[in-house]
Amino acid sequence: MEQPLDYQEKTAGRNMVTDVPVFSENDTLKDIEDFLIDRSSQFNSLDYIYLTDKINTLVGVISIKDLLVTVDKTLKASKIMVSNLVTAQVDTDQERLVYLALSHGLKSIPVVNEEGGFMGVVPYDTILQIFNHEVQSDVFKFGGIFHRIGDEYTSIHSSAIHMIRSRLPWLIIGVIGGTLAASLIAQFEELLSSFIALASFIPVMVYMSDAAGAQTEALIIRSMALDTKLNVRKYLTREVVVATVLAAISGLFAAFMAYVTRQNLILGVIIFFALFLSIIASVTINTLAPLILRKFKYDPALATGPLATIFSDIATLAIYLAVAMTLLGN
Amino acid sequence: MEQPLDYQEKTAGRNMVTDVPVFSENDTLKDIEDFLIDRSSQFNSLDYIYLTDKINTLVGVISIKDLLVTVDKTLKASKIMVSNLVTAQVDTDQERLVYLALSHGLKSIPVVNEEGGFMGVVPYDTILQIFNHEVQSDVFKFGGIFHRIGDEYTSIHSSAIHMIRSRLPWLIIGVIGGTLAASLIAQFEELLSSFIALASFIPVMVYMSDAAGAQTEALIIRSMALDTKLNVRKYLTREVVVATVLAAISGLFAAFMAYVTRQNLILGVIIFFALFLSIIASVTINTLAPLILRKFKYDPALATGPLATIFSDIATLAIYLAVAMTLLGN
Repeated sequence: MEQPLDYQEKTAGRNMVTDVPVFSENDTLKDIEDFLIDRSSQFNSLDYIYLTDKINTLVGVISIKDLLVTVDKTLKASKIMVSNLVTAQVDTDQERLVYLALSHGLKSIPVVNEEGGFMGVVPYDTILQIFNHEVQSDVFKFGGIFHRIGDEYTSIHSSAIHMIRSRLPWLIIGVIGGTLAASLIAQFEELLSSFIALASFIPVMVYMSDAAGAQTEALIIRSMALDTKLNVRKYLTREVVVATVLAAISGLFAAFMAYVTRQNLILGVIIFFALFLSIIASVTINTLAPLILRKFKYDPALATGPLATIFSDIATLAIYLAVAMTLLGN
Repeated sequence: MEQPLDYQEKTAGRNMVTDVPVFSENDTLKDIEDFLIDRSSQFNSLDYIYLTDKINTLVGVISIKDLLVTVDKTLKASKIMVSNLVTAQVDTDQERLVYLALSHGLKSIPVVNEEGGFMGVVPYDTILQIFNHEVQSDVFKFGGIFHRIGDEYTSIHSSAIHMIRSRLPWLIIGVIGGTLAASLIAQFEELLSSFIALASFIPVMVYMSDAAGAQTEALIIRSMALDTKLNVRKYLTREVVVATVLAAISGLFAAFMAYVTRQNLILGVIIFFALFLSIIASVTINTLAPLILRKFKYDPALATGPLATIFSDIATLAIYLAVAMTLLGN
């Protein structure tokens, strides 16, 4: 029989334990109880007794509680077992185990092979540890930190050198992206010189595009983590409506503020169109990036790293300067 | 006896169940087994049997498995019980339950009052749901989304109106913060006009300060979530070293890139000093904000919202323009 180490990392197979009690559905409760009393120390986990048919197909479980409280021990196990089990395949992604446990309130999840044959069980504490690692991994990616999950359980004990190595890469990539952005703006320096107020509003354009992007990422990453069969069409339809409304309101408000503080109508008009378009662009980039990554079997949370932000920032600056060029008739 | 609803929200007391089997440590295994067989249906959770002394102090537990496999049923419960239990107080924060379960591999956590009296148990599925809600809450705050946890389990089923209402507030605050930033820059428009290359590097300054701040937030929020007794002094000492090194390397690299792309030495020097100082400022703001919030009993994750970013951005722009003023001798 295959052992956990035969399976790929981050699958149900890799995380299962195999030292659990397995009996035939035709064994009597007395057979099971006698065996357990004899051998209880050999089992890692003893919440459920797993029942199989002649060809090792998992057909049901009995809780230890039900075994204890059933008075007629001559009954066959199949008489009191619970069937219709929620199971995972050996190659099920470990993130899905968390989803199954959360959505069905399960303590442990039996693992079966393609033929339904019983292979093992992912116990409670493993599911909680997987959840913790996934969360840590997602939050760190969100924050732009390179972190090899499993190397370090928490960060307080990591050395300063380790912390620098996990934080520096994205900062260096940020400098490169920022220099690209600076080179883009440099092409428009004549425009900026002739209408210097435009420069003052660069930070608000970049900030708003990043903020809308971060919201988009947080929502889609959580939605995908909670529901691995996320209805993408429904999600996108709603996101289009939401993004358009948010972009319109934010654009109008920013234009109003720009007009009030600078008493310049054309500046307000530029801010409105540029912010409207750049929020739409940012939401689009930050929605599609994780979906595309998932399509190609990469971890969608990779997109929450700073790369999508750098793309959005450059797109935002290009939109801002192009809108200004167009409206100022340069 | 107090019931769960008597306790404040988000405490162990509020999340406990009370329909669990409780016996005296002096009961025999036979007494317990007979009672359970008779009344098994009345218990919500049946993994452990909780044992108390005469004055209801929790003294130990027996797992259902140990009850089943112990042959001599005339033994007193105290003979096979596990003592030295990990427990929560009725007013323990629910986030700490997740930490206890993770760090001790616990299925369920007994809840006691100030005198050690047994009050109830927080079961496995509740701990997992609490963890899920905390994660959802943290990720949403990180992304700048107002979300009343508990109202909506996932987001895919929320209406577009609900999504707009939870995303718009931070965008509006962002516009206000951005307008403040624009007004700050407007004070320096003469400087910018006379040295327009400075305008090109505004986005990289803002981006880098945000990136360093986001890393800081992700680390400190996770460290506090995983270890509610985080050693702040040790954490800060390391963070000072890490931030200084990151700021120096990023500053030097950005200065080098600015010099190479613009062939302007003074621009490089300005970029170095400004980026060095603004990364230090951003790390400081983003480290202190959650610590101060926690000190005053607010949720530290509030600081991961966009407010700390807006403060950092304005600080960064002020530093950038002040450094440029000083070095250009205006």
